Formats: sequence, C-alpha cells, structure tokens
Amino acid sequence: MSDLLWPGDDRAGDLFTDATVLAAMVRMEAAWLGALVRHGIAGSGARDDLSGLIGPGDVPIVAAGAESGGNPLIPLLALLRERLEPRNPAAAAWLHKGLTSQDVIDTGLVLCLRDAAARIRDDLSAQAAALARLADRHRATWMPGRTLTQHAVPITFGLKAAGWLTGVLDARDRLAAAADLPAQVGGAAGSLAAPVALAGSVSVARDLIETTAATLDLPVRDPWHTARAPLTGIADALVTCTDAWGRIANDVLVGARPEIHELSEGAVAGRGGSSAMPNKQNPVLSILVRRAALAAPSLAATVHAGAAAAVDERPDGGWHVEWATLRTLARRTVTAGAQTAELLAGLRVDAARMTANLAAARPGIDAEQRAVSPDAAPGQPYPGAGDQIIDAAIARSKESHP
Amino acid sequence: MSDLLWPGDDRAGDLFTDATVLAAMVRMEAAWLGALVRHGIAGSGARDDLSGLIGPGDVPIVAAGAESGGNPLIPLLALLRERLEPRNPAAAAWLHKGLTSQDVIDTGLVLCLRDAAARIRDDLSAQAAALARLADRHRATWMPGRTLTQHAVPITFGLKAAGWLTGVLDARDRLAAAADLPAQVGGAAGSLAAPVALAGSVSVARDLIETTAATLDLPVRDPWHTARAPLTGIADALVTCTDAWGRIANDVLVGARPEIHELSEGAVAGRGGSSAMPNKQNPVLSILVRRAALAAPSLAATVHAGAAAAVDERPDGGWHVEWATLRTLARRTVTAGAQTAELLAGLRVDAARMTANLAAARPGIDAEQRAVSPDAAPGQPYPGAGDQIIDAAIARSKESHP
Amino acid sequence: MSDLLWPGDDRAGDLFTDATVLAAMVRMEAAWLGALVRHGIAGSGARDDLSGLIGPGDVPIVAAGAESGGNPLIPLLALLRERLEPRNPAAAAWLHKGLTSQDVIDTGLVLCLRDAAARIRDDLSAQAAALARLADRHRATWMPGRTLTQHAVPITFGLKAAGWLTGVLDARDRLAAAADLPAQVGGAAGSLAAPVALAGSVSVARDLIETTAATLDLPVRDPWHTARAPLTGIADALVTCTDAWGRIANDVLVGARPEIHELSEGAVAGRGGSSAMPNKQNPVLSILVRRAALAAPSLAATVHAGAAAAVDERPDGGWHVEWATLRTLARRTVTAGAQTAELLAGLRVDAARMTANLAAARPGIDAEQRAVSPDAAPGQPYPGAGDQIIDAAIARSKESHP
Amino acid sequence: MSDLLWPGDDRAGDLFTDATVLAAMVRMEAAWLGALVRHGIAGSGARDDLSGLIGPGDVPIVAAGAESGGNPLIPLLALLRERLEPRNPAAAAWLHKGLTSQDVIDTGLVLCLRDAAARIRDDLSAQAAALARLADRHRATWMPGRTLTQHAVPITFGLKAAGWLTGVLDARDRLAAAADLPAQVGGAAGSLAAPVALAGSVSVARDLIETTAATLDLPVRDPWHTARAPLTGIADALVTCTDAWGRIANDVLVGARPEIHELSEGAVAGRGGSSAMPNKQNPVLSILVRRAALAAPSLAATVHAGAAAAVDERPDGGWHVEWATLRTLARRTVTAGAQTAELLAGLRVDAARMTANLAAARPGIDAEQRAVSPDAAPGQPYPGAGDQIIDAAIARSKESHP
Repeated sequence: MSDLLWPGDDRAGDLFTDATVLAAMVRMEAAWLGALVRHGIAGSGARDDLSGLIGPGDVPIVAAGAESGGNPLIPLLALLRERLEPRNPAAAAWLHKGLTSQDVIDTGLVLCLRDAAARIRDDLSAQAAALARLADRHRATWMPGRTLTQHAVPITFGLKAAGWLTGVLDARDRLAAAADLPAQVGGAAGSLAAPVALAGSVSVARDLIETTAATLDLPVRDPWHTARAPLTGIADALVTCTDAWGRIANDVLVGARPEIHELSEGAVAGRGGSSAMPNKQNPVLSILVRRAALAAPSLAATVHAGAAAAVDERPDGGWHVEWATLRTLARRTVTAGAQTAELLAGLRVDAARMTANLAAARPGIDAEQRAVSPDAAPGQPYPGAGDQIIDAAIARSKESHP
Repeated sequence: MSDLLWPGDDRAGDLFTDATVLAAMVRMEAAWLGALVRHGIAGSGARDDLSGLIGPGDVPIVAAGAESGGNPLIPLLALLRERLEPRNPAAAAWLHKGLTSQDVIDTGLVLCLRDAAARIRDDLSAQAAALARLADRHRATWMPGRTLTQHAVPITFGLKAAGWLTGVLDARDRLAAAADLPAQVGGAAGSLAAPVALAGSVSVARDLIETTAATLDLPVRDPWHTARAPLTGIADALVTCTDAWGRIANDVLVGARPEIHELSEGAVAGRGGSSAMPNKQNPVLSILVRRAALAAPSLAATVHAGAAAAVDERPDGGWHVEWATLRTLARRTVTAGAQTAELLAGLRVDAARMTANLAAARPGIDAEQRAVSPDAAPGQPYPGAGDQIIDAAIARSKESHP
Repeated sequence: MSDLLWPGDDRAGDLFTDATVLAAMVRMEAAWLGALVRHGIAGSGARDDLSGLIGPGDVPIVAAGAESGGNPLIPLLALLRERLEPRNPAAAAWLHKGLTSQDVIDTGLVLCLRDAAARIRDDLSAQAAALARLADRHRATWMPGRTLTQHAVPITFGLKAAGWLTGVLDARDRLAAAADLPAQVGGAAGSLAAPVALAGSVSVARDLIETTAATLDLPVRDPWHTARAPLTGIADALVTCTDAWGRIANDVLVGARPEIHELSEGAVAGRGGSSAMPNKQNPVLSILVRRAALAAPSLAATVHAGAAAAVDERPDGGWHVEWATLRTLARRTVTAGAQTAELLAGLRVDAARMTANLAAARPGIDAEQRAVSPDAAPGQPYPGAGDQIIDAAIARSKESHP
Repeated sequence: MSDLLWPGDDRAGDLFTDATVLAAMVRMEAAWLGALVRHGIAGSGARDDLSGLIGPGDVPIVAAGAESGGNPLIPLLALLRERLEPRNPAAAAWLHKGLTSQDVIDTGLVLCLRDAAARIRDDLSAQAAALARLADRHRATWMPGRTLTQHAVPITFGLKAAGWLTGVLDARDRLAAAADLPAQVGGAAGSLAAPVALAGSVSVARDLIETTAATLDLPVRDPWHTARAPLTGIADALVTCTDAWGRIANDVLVGARPEIHELSEGAVAGRGGSSAMPNKQNPVLSILVRRAALAAPSLAATVHAGAAAAVDERPDGGWHVEWATLRTLARRTVTAGAQTAELLAGLRVDAARMTANLAAARPGIDAEQRAVSPDAAPGQPYPGAGDQIIDAAIARSKESHP
C-alpha cells in the first residue's frame, strides 16, 4: 500500500492496510470459531485456526465483491468457506454461525485501531522524552516570547518546549483513555439471539463472547452496533494528537523562517531539497505534520456525523462511512506521529540567534516588566515560574502510564 | 438573547449569553483582585468585589469596543477601571495586574462551559432515568428489529431503549471526564512572569493562583494558553452528547412515520402544528434534536482547527475562533439535551402497532431463527440476551457518578 | 444584536439579525397577499401592506414560540393575524393562503442573503481597487519570494498584491454566480396544489408567483424545497471569499512579524493595544480575518450536510440546520469583508525593509537564476512576467461586472 | 488500487490512482519539454515524449521518496532523469527546466480531476435521462407527499422524480462551471522568472505556456499557486453532486422500508444479501450513496481549509493537504455517481403500494385541500402544477450542455 499523494504515508507500514484489515476479520472469525469449539457448541472436528486460507493477494477479489452486499465481510466469508470446505467441512459449516457482518467488521476495525494506537503511543513517548530533554536543556535559553505574532515578554525556549510537552502529554492521556476498544458481538440485531440459541443459554453465550474477546485480547462490552462512542472517542483522541503536533510544527515553521532562524530541522541527506532551487532547505517534516493537523479535524467530524446518523439496529450509511474514514485518520496520525518524533529528535535550536533576536526586541519587550517592577534594572531577569513549569511538565512526562 | 433561527434556543436561557460571559470575566477579575489582597500583594484598601459595576446593559458598548484590541476583555477592563476608580482607586490601580487578556477570557469561557455542562449533565440524568424506565417496561414489547432499513430479527423495544441508554451513558461519562475545566493564569506569555514579580516568589504566585481558582471553584493547571486539549475535550464531549441524541431522534422519526407508527412524541397543546395542514402532527422535538446532531460535528471540528493552528505564546486567530464556536456548540447542546429529555419523558410507545408490524414481517423475519434453530416451532421466542443487556444498562444508569 | 465573542460582528449591522429576518418574512407574506389581490384571487378589500404590524420588539415572542411548530413562521403568522384582524379582517383571512412555512422562511433567508451578498460585493470591489493600486505602485518593490517558509527567488510586492487580487476577483466571480437566489413558492409539498386551487389555473398561479417574486425583486424558480443547490452555492461562495481574505491575512501576519517587518496594519488610535503590554501593536484586523477563514469551511460543510440529508417533500432536520448556519456564515463573511477592505486600504508597505531582507537573502536567493542564466551578472533583474501578470490582474479588476 | 473499506470504489477504476497521477505528472513534463523544443529554446535533439520511462510499477519507489522533498515530483524527476539520460541526454538536461514542483503537481491534479469530472458528467447525464423517464412515466402515479416525516398532501411520484432531477441538473451545471480547470505554470515563485529567462522574452514564455496547455488540452491561466479557487470550486461542485444523490438515496431508503415499500432497488443476482439473514434484500446502492453524501462535505471543507491556509508564494502545508483530499473526494464522487446511475436505471416503483398508502392516509391528507377548496368533492384531484413542473425539468434535462 502506498499513497503517492500523502508523502510519508509509508511510515504507517502495514497498519490498517487492506491486507491487514482482511487478516483482522479472519482473526475474529477464527476466534469465534475457536470459542464455539471450546465451549462445546461446535464439535471438536470444527477446530480450525483458519490459517493459510486468506492472504494479501485476496484483497482485489474481496474488494471487488464488497459492493454487492455493502460490506467486505460477505465476499470474504464466501472465500473462506470455499477454501475451508475441502480441508475442514465441519469448520466451514460452523464458520460465522451466530455472528453478523457488523460483529466481524467492527472487531476488525478495532484490532486495526488498537495497533495503530499502540504505535502512536510509542511515538508520543519518544516525543515526550525528546521534549523533556529540550525543556531541561534550554531552561536558560532566552528568546522573545511572542503573542499575536508580536514580541511580548522574554521567555526561555525551555518553557516553550514544556508547553509543547503539555500538549503531547494531554494527547497521550486522551489516547490512553480512548484506545481500550472493545470487541463487538451482537448478532443480527444486537440482541445476541443467535449466539444464545446456539449456546443454549445466555450464560454460555456470554462465555463464548468472553473467550472470543480474550483470544483477541480485547475487552468485552454489550453490543454497541448503534452506540458508537468507542469509535468517536478514538477519532477524537487521534485529532487531539494531530492538534498537539500541529502546534509544534507551526512553531518550528515560524522559527525556521530565515529572518528568525531560531529553529531548524535536523539535516538528513537529500531531505528538504527543491526541484528548482538549490539553495532551499525546506522544513519538510514540519510542513507534512502541519498538513495532517489541517486534515484531521474534518475526518473526526465525519466519524461523528456517521455516529449521529445511526438509526435502526444497523444504520443505512452512517456505519459504512466510518470504515475508510477511521483508516485514513489512523494512518495519517501514525505518519504524523512518527514525523513529529523524528522532528523533535533532530531539532536544532540556535540559542545564539534567540539571544540576538531578544536583544533586538529590546527595550520594547521589557515594557511589561518595567510596568510591573519599575525599579528593576534593565536586563534584570523576568523568569516567572518557568523553571517550575518545566519541572512539572518533565515530571508528568515520567509518570508511568497504563 | 434570542435566536429566531434556532427554535428552542431559549431553553438555554442565560447560559453563555453575552451578559453571562461579561459577568464571568468580571468574576475572574474579582477573584484575582481578591487573591492579591488576601496574600498581601495589594493593600487591604484594594479589596473590592467589583459588584454592581458591570451589567447586561454594558454588552453593546463592550462588544463595540472588542474589535479594536481583538478581544472583549480590553474594553471591559477600560469600563471597569473607569467605574471603579471613583469608588475605590486602590482597587482600580490593582485591577488585572499580573494577568493577560487570555487569562480572563479563557477562564470566563471555562466558567460558562462549566455551567452549561452542569445543565447538560442534569438532562443526561433525566434522560437516563426515563430510558431505564422505558427499557424495563418494554422488556416484552416485541417489534421488528431493522438493519439497513430492512426487517432483520425480532427484538423488544426494551432492548432498543437500552441501546439508546448506552449512548446516553457513554455521553455522560465522556462529559464527566471533560467538564473539569481548569482556570487559566499564565501572564503575558505563559511564564507567570508578572505574577511572580508581583508576588515576590514563585510560591506566593502559586498561592495567588490557587486562591483565585478556589474562589471560582475551578481546578488549577499550569498555563495552557497554547495547549488547548481542555477545550477540544469539552467540545468532543458535547458532540458525543448530540450524537447519542441524534441516534434517538432518528429512531423516533422512523417510528413516527404514519406507515410504521410505533412511536410518537407526547402531545403538547399547540406543538407540532402546521401553517397550512391542519392534519399534521409533526415530531418537532425529534426534528430539532436531529438538526443539532447535524450541526455539532463541524463546530467541534472548528475548535480542533483552532487548537491545531496554535502558534507562538498566543495564537493569531486560532484562539479567537474558539470563543463563539464553543458558545454556539454549548448552547445548542444544552437546547438539544433539554429537548431530548422532554422527548423521552413524553414518548408514546404503541405496543400494539409494534406487534402488528412484527406479525406482518413474518415469516421472513424469522429466517435467521429457522436457520439457527431448525427445530424451533414457529413463533417460538428468540430473545437472546435482551433481558440481561437491559439489566446491565439499567444498572449502569444507576451508578453514582462523580 | 451584538456578539461579544466575535469581535467586529457589529460591522454586519442589521444584516440578517433576528429583526431583519422577521421583517423579511413579513415582506414575503405581504408580497404574496399583494399578488393575491392584484390577480383578483382575493378581493381588493384584502389589500394590506402589513406595515406597522411587526417590529423588532416582537423578536422575543416569536422566538419563544418557534419551537412548538419547529419554525419561527408559525408564531409570526399567529401574531400577524391577531394584529391584522382588527384593521383588516379580509386581509387576515387571506394571509398566507396557499403558502407553506418553508416558502416564507426560505424566501426570507434569500432576502437576507441577498443583502449580505450585496454588502460583500461592495467590499470586494473596494478590496480589488485597493489591491490594484498596491500592485501597480509596487511593481518595482523587490522582496524575497518565499516558498515553504524559505527564501525562493526575488519577487516584487506588486506581484504578491496581484496574487491577492486574483483571489479576491475569483471570489467576486463566484459570489456573482451564486448570489442570484430565487424566491421560493411551492405550497405544502412543492406541487403548487394550493396556489393552483386558489388561482383556478396553473397559469394564474404562475402569475401569482411572478408578481410575488417581482415585488421582492427576486428571480423565479420552480419549487426547490428539497433541491438546495441555491443555498449550498451561496455558502460555497462565501467560503471562497474568506479563503481569499485568509490568504491575505496570513501574508500580512508573516510580514508583520518584527523580524520581517515588511508589512503592518494602518495605525488607528487605540487599535491593537494589549491589556498588559504597552509595547504591543497587534495586527488585529488580520488576526480577526484569519479567524473567519478558520471558521467558514465547517459552516459551509454544515449547509451541505443539511442539503445531503434532505428527504421527503420537506426534510426532518436537514432543512432546519441551514437557517442559523447560513446566518452565522453570512454575518462572519460580511464582517471579514469589511475588515479586509479596511486592512488593505490602510496597509503599510515597508519597501526599505523588503529591500534589506532581500539583500540579506543573497546570494542564496539568486541560486535559481544562476542555474538558469549562468552568465547573468550578480544582481541582474529576474523579473519574469511580473509586470504582465500585474497588468492582467488590474485589467480584470476593472471589468464591469453584473 | 482497491479500497476494501469503501465498497464500490473499484467503479472509479484507474481514475486518480497513484499510477494515473504519476502518468499525469509525466505528461506535464513531456508537454513542457515539447514546448521548449517547439519554440526553439531547447534544441531539437531534446525532443522526447518521455514514453516508456515510467510505469505503474514505479509507484512504490516514488512514493517512498516523496517525503524527503515533501512531494512526489522530486523523486519522480530523479527517476525520469536517470532513465532518460542514457537514451537522450539532451532531453534529460532540459527536463523540468523553468518549472517548479508545484507546476507539475498542480497540473497533474488538474488532469486527474478533469478525467474524473468527465466521468461524473456522463453519469449525471445518464441519471438525468433516467429521471426524465421516471418523471414522465409517473405523472399520474399518486402517492402521499410527506413533510417532516408526516403525510402532507397527495403528490405524484413523477413530481418527486422531477425534484430529484432538479438536484441532478443543478449539480451538472455546477460541475460544468467548475471543471474547466487550468494548467499551472508559474515557476519558482509565480513570477515566471525562469521561463522568461529561458525564453528570452515574456512573449515567448507565454507561447511556451500556451503550447504546453494546448498539448494537455487545458486552458491557460496566470499562476495560481496561492489562489486556489479553481480547486475549491471543483471540490464544491463534487459535493453538490453527492448532495443531490444523497437526497435521492434518502428517499429510496424511506421508500424501501417494508412498511412503506413504494420503492426498491433493481434486483441483481447476489446483491443486497446478508451474512446471516437469508430473508434480507438490502438497498445496498442507496446505502452506499448515502454514505458518500455523509463524507463529502468534510472533504471539501478540508480543501477550503487548505486554501485558506495559503501563505507566501507556496504554502507550508495548506497546499499539501489538498492532494490526497481531492483524490479521495473525486474517487468517492465517481463511485457514488455510477452507483446512483445504476440505482435510477433499475429503480422499481410500486405504484399500487403508493396508491394504497395514499388511500390509507385519507382523509387526513386531504385536509389542506378541504380548507382551500371547501366545495371539492372527496377524492377530487389536487394536482397543482405538477405536470408543468415535470415538463420544465424534463426540458431542462434535454438542453444541450457545454
């Protein structure tokens, strides 16, 4: 999977690709089949891990068949059954029994989202560590604080980095709260009618679900076919990430302007060049991160629009719009997270230029201090609680986290 | 404040009106002034609660002056100082000292959002109680389950109500997690430079902030001028509410179609009439709730877009776009919450029609059951775990909640 | 009407206020009543221009009554009838006969949108004239061209102004194409059943509609209750305006950074001050324009979402969400248009600083020229077609326009 | 290219795939190189149509290299040069000379958008023809008109189809106005500096551009690197299409509900089945079209957000966010257009059921008629101008169109 028009997309690798989605749906079918066998609903002859039946090469055929039933599970199931039948007819007969398409598709999405979220959490941790170092190292690196584009009062770059860190940690917390997505098992209309009929009792049906979820290492939740807060929650968390990174990218882009030149991206051979201007060294990572921050809010809004369009026991379009939207949002967030982590790891801070810019901003930039402390000698520090704010942000970054 | 073009807006009453915002900003200034006096920074002669200085009648003059400085605090401050000066010159001299506009505006927004959130929480509780009653009462009210607009398998209306309830409880949890918004005190560039200079030490400056926040009954947080997750979080939570309500409204609108007629809104004298068709009884509350669910995702997206546009120590537009957007989103959510609560309290469930619609859907609607339980006699129950799902949702609705 | 949280909103004055909407709906009712009389459907005794019956003071009562029927026309009509009855019972009996609520509300919105669009067109013309002057005056004002935040090749500020002008002219064209909004007369379900029944023939019913539209100076169109392209078209045009202005504001905000300092907003007494920092001179207009550009895309998206949710002969929420959204979008666009016009009229161009910045950017910024013209002497002009591009933009700005 | 998560995406075939984008960029490079030769800037030895150098198999390598320079053109150019050099060193030396990355990427996008728009126009024409037939055939097929979900007055299905047709024709007009997208040639900063330097005069540089555009069959326009109305215009037009189709899908989805059953999708073997419920026949096309209508507004909003974020002579993220967003929007619109065309071609209208539903709606649904024409006998027609509205819509559908 490549996306020529979203440079950097390959950073997301196999996360949430068509092949990965296909495999995730097969995992769900296998987990359910395994549970049916384990709890004695299906005979032991139906035991089959479904391995080796479906591979990345099947994507085109499944995709081509997806329109007919309105979702990719139906053609996938047909293919699975056709290939399973010769090797294990009992398994083929029990496959998917008691489930509905939405159970498998939702759980497949959840598995993909979980892996994407795990990757993002790693990058958030790397970012937090890099920012903690920057904040600590630059406690005394003075620069002009800027508000509404104009010089305000002096600050340290450490304080600015601590502010970036706060955004990253807020995103980490939001993602942690949202990423514990549950499996979906509801049956045709969310009543668990078929699972209970197959299991013979509600209690055994619940065991089936718990076994299935445990196999997939997912939490259990009562059917949520039309209560989509789990998915809007993760979408909101992803945007909270891109918001935090966008804000960092904006600052780097301002700092990288030649006339300001306080910040620049780490040099990587070949990066940042121009097709026509040999002089250029473009802050490419920041530009691409900023791009993601521009795109993400509308994608999450679409997930909400789908949730708000829910109706009946399975929605007529509101459900379908989630799938590709969540995938796009997840892959773009993964990409931006990796880019931001690299950006921060390599960020170059030109302390001398910061000092020079601050000097050039004087005496105007000291006006508030003169008003507040009329007796302060020119150039006397005006540090506020910068150090303590940095300390607190660093401490928070080191808290162990679920 | 009225909004002719958003029928029902008056349900939001004084929440987040211009006058309320003005009063909230004055409360912040008063809390800070009080803290300056209490901690001995300002002399006791500066004690003043600022009461009686600013009223709703001042809205036009403050609004007219807001463009010049780019925010409403600057003209408000000028007015406050002018009126305070004659009665308490010491207070006038200390007013706002150490703060920046954003401290006062952000905290004012937070106060307004908190009150709106409290009102919404009350309505969510009322909705949850009504839904628990509906779910419990209709455990045996069978109707056609519908997926993708078509008959699927029989369900009970109790199960459907439990699904609505799940959405409402998810929204309640999300709102509870997001509504604990902090006060904002950062000074000109988020370093607390002026507060510390005034206080003489970081420790006393922190006392100032804690006293201020305690006066307003808000939590304390290090400056978050450019780390806007608190505000995007509440925006996301509000949309989670309208999503849940939109889904209920959609179901009522389907159920209220004359050919289906399973659900109708409670009769209220004069409601639902038409300007030309005396026969009409329109499901007005559902329509207006659905409207809110259509509007809310884009409003939250704008709050995120503002957060993602943050730059420098105070953003050049990304901050400003939040204010009115949050207000609109909050008032519309309050309105929709009250409408949904009333809708659910008065909802009429036509059990006989549900039974009839289910009968007419047979035998097609029993096809899954026949496939799963080939020996089941026609009309044999196919209840699944409906009762247990209802029990769990009701139990969750009764959990005490922070 | 004031909006404390959208500084500058008072620039939109009475456009699209609640009182103006109310008056526009009354104008529609009066035009229809007049047509009924003129074409002999109603007797001449029913002649009444409805003047003096409804005023701004009625907004609260109509707003309060709007929820019950789901729209503001129903309570307005009740009020009109009640007050008209004593002075002209025949008119009261004929009032609104043959119309449906949506006819009056849609036409009322159209009247308000038309006036807002006219105001915006005036500001676009003023902007175009100012930009043509800037482009012409600065044909030889060299500055660094910047791409991806970095120095690219030298350009003139005149060329940059011509680029701004192109955006403004594109917006002007888009608005001109979209602003010719039609009246709405469809009757209860868009078949014109009641108008034809009253008129006795389709032909006379059409005369009624044409007279009504002519009275309001609006074009005629067959009923468009559920075909909302006229309204999405104007929404898209309004965003095209804010896009163009946002791009200008972004450039001014970069140019106004102290380290670059090529551009600044015209000085106005008291504008751009800070509540705490006497040194600040904030580019307030640009900030507020940029804010509008951040907000507008989502508002237009909501209008589209409403259009896409249309169903039946009058939608159940998709219609209702348009009203306030269009109003907000229109007023914000008007405000931003006036702010941009003022910004451009007063813009200060620091040609000396541009020259200095360009000098400092050398020799790097000349790299492309050296590659393309290896024999060019250092500092030799590299003008491209700047003059011709400026000429063309100026010429286009002077085209007479419908 | 397949998209497992957007069933039906394969209907868009090769339109705007990565391979197609790559080929479009090569076409632009070839057209420019050809122009350089034709106008004698490059010697005739540099003549090369670039054919056979780049193919679909190069997508992964170009995609992988795109992040480094922030766009896919830079690695594509490297590959082109490397492969061209052995066969035609003169061409390799002249390749891309005078252009900037944005010229090639923008023109590549334009070529892809044009092809997508042409395909959509074909489907709009097919839809219009199908709707004209439906409207004409069902002039006398009476059914309940519905407003706000409730029975309003009788209408004919022909009138409803004419309303759908109006939406489709509005979309066709909007698309026709927007689809005439221009080539982009601006050089490094939009001044045409390098082209003019190469050409020796502005006039010859203009010839170069005209030849290039003519080769690609595109109109010429002065550089629009940062004036993005052409792209927001096409995005808005695409959403206008999905709005119109979403409205049709919504009506079909209501009409397909078993209790209403007035409309159903044409039967296609295997379509609309369920993974668990053999009884189901889901209105799959309508569901998938509705899905597109839910997604499109936010995608266009992102294109506007990118346009509004333009700054400098090439934006730092606002440009980059357009690419993939336009591609997604275009492919989804193409898919939905083809689905809608098929939906309309096969739509089944159950006139008997419409009659029955109307009969069941009586006498309530005749209330307006009784009020307007108290002397009308029960069941007397209430046709309004239905026939004339249908005639006008059909006539408009037959207008020849640019």
